Amino acid sequence: MKILILSSDGFEDLELLAPYYRFEEEGFTVDIASKKREKIKGKHDYEVAATKSFDEVNPEGYDMLFLPGGKAATRVRKEDAALQLARHFIEKGKPVAAICHGPQILISAGVVSGKRMTCWPEVSRELKEAGAVYEDKEVVVDGNLITSRKADDLPFFMREVMKKARVPV
Amino acid sequence: MKILILSSDGFEDLELLAPYYRFEEEGFTVDIASKKREKIKGKHDYEVAATKSFDEVNPEGYDMLFLPGGKAATRVRKEDAALQLARHFIEKGKPVAAICHGPQILISAGVVSGKRMTCWPEVSRELKEAGAVYEDKEVVVDGNLITSRKADDLPFFMREVMKKARVPV
Repeated sequence: MKILILSSDGFEDLELLAPYYRFEEEGFTVDIASKKREKIKGKHDYEVAATKSFDEVNPEGYDMLFLPGGKAATRVRKEDAALQLARHFIEKGKPVAAICHGPQILISAGVVSGKRMTCWPEVSRELKEAGAVYEDKEVVVDGNLITSRKADDLPFFMREVMKKARVPV
Repeated sequence: MKILILSSDGFEDLELLAPYYRFEEEGFTVDIASKKREKIKGKHDYEVAATKSFDEVNPEGYDMLFLPGGKAATRVRKEDAALQLARHFIEKGKPVAAICHGPQILISAGVVSGKRMTCWPEVSRELKEAGAVYEDKEVVVDGNLITSRKADDLPFFMREVMKKARVPV
């Protein structure tokens, strides 16, 4: 299982790092991509290396897309290369997991219409305007799309993410 | 499976919260105890509620002890009630997991002599002086004692912790 994380400076530290460690615990391979290859910094000052730039990622090589929250998502959604990556996973029916502000990337990619989803409360309005069916729940699973609201939802979120990750692609 | 975490202000945020979420993902019950019942704050400013004080915990009700790092461990090791709790788990042969500065609590509890262990590099000297056999590895397992060095070791640490947690007590 190979997982791609898209993020940037301002990521919500626990939403990126707790799943990152969880995937490594399970023996999965995880790559973090950002606009450039560089160290990115979370809002709580943790740092992590983005080892790929968005435009050098070949999404065919990945089984799941993972989108953490924080202001990072606002930066990622402005990058066409990142949005193309997001569309690949949705179009191929591969699992996509997004938490907190992470769903903003899916809104900008134009792939949320008709989907049952959740997100950070302040993002719910634009999610609904983009045609998604918003639910205020710890985790919402619609097919291969898994969404949660905030870091405290991580136990519920990761339980569903791991179920999808354990299904052979 | 019921897990007891001992900590205080100054905890290493990821070392407490990533395992906390991981245990909840698995459906385990987790209680955080501190000197008093209160919100405790990590070095990276995450907050979490300690719902028990050390002196009101009955350790008989728990299957595993979990000791995160950060300066919190320096505070916890000064509390006799916390050290008595640590001794209970070691004496009963229940799993004990400690990361980073967490092993300092076991040093003060007087239970490390002859044990193979690791810890935060700067703690290694006092660990050896207390009679432990120090190893500089991601994770060291000696019977039911599991130790790691730092947050980046969490994938290795949690893999071993979860193995012990899944064995019926």
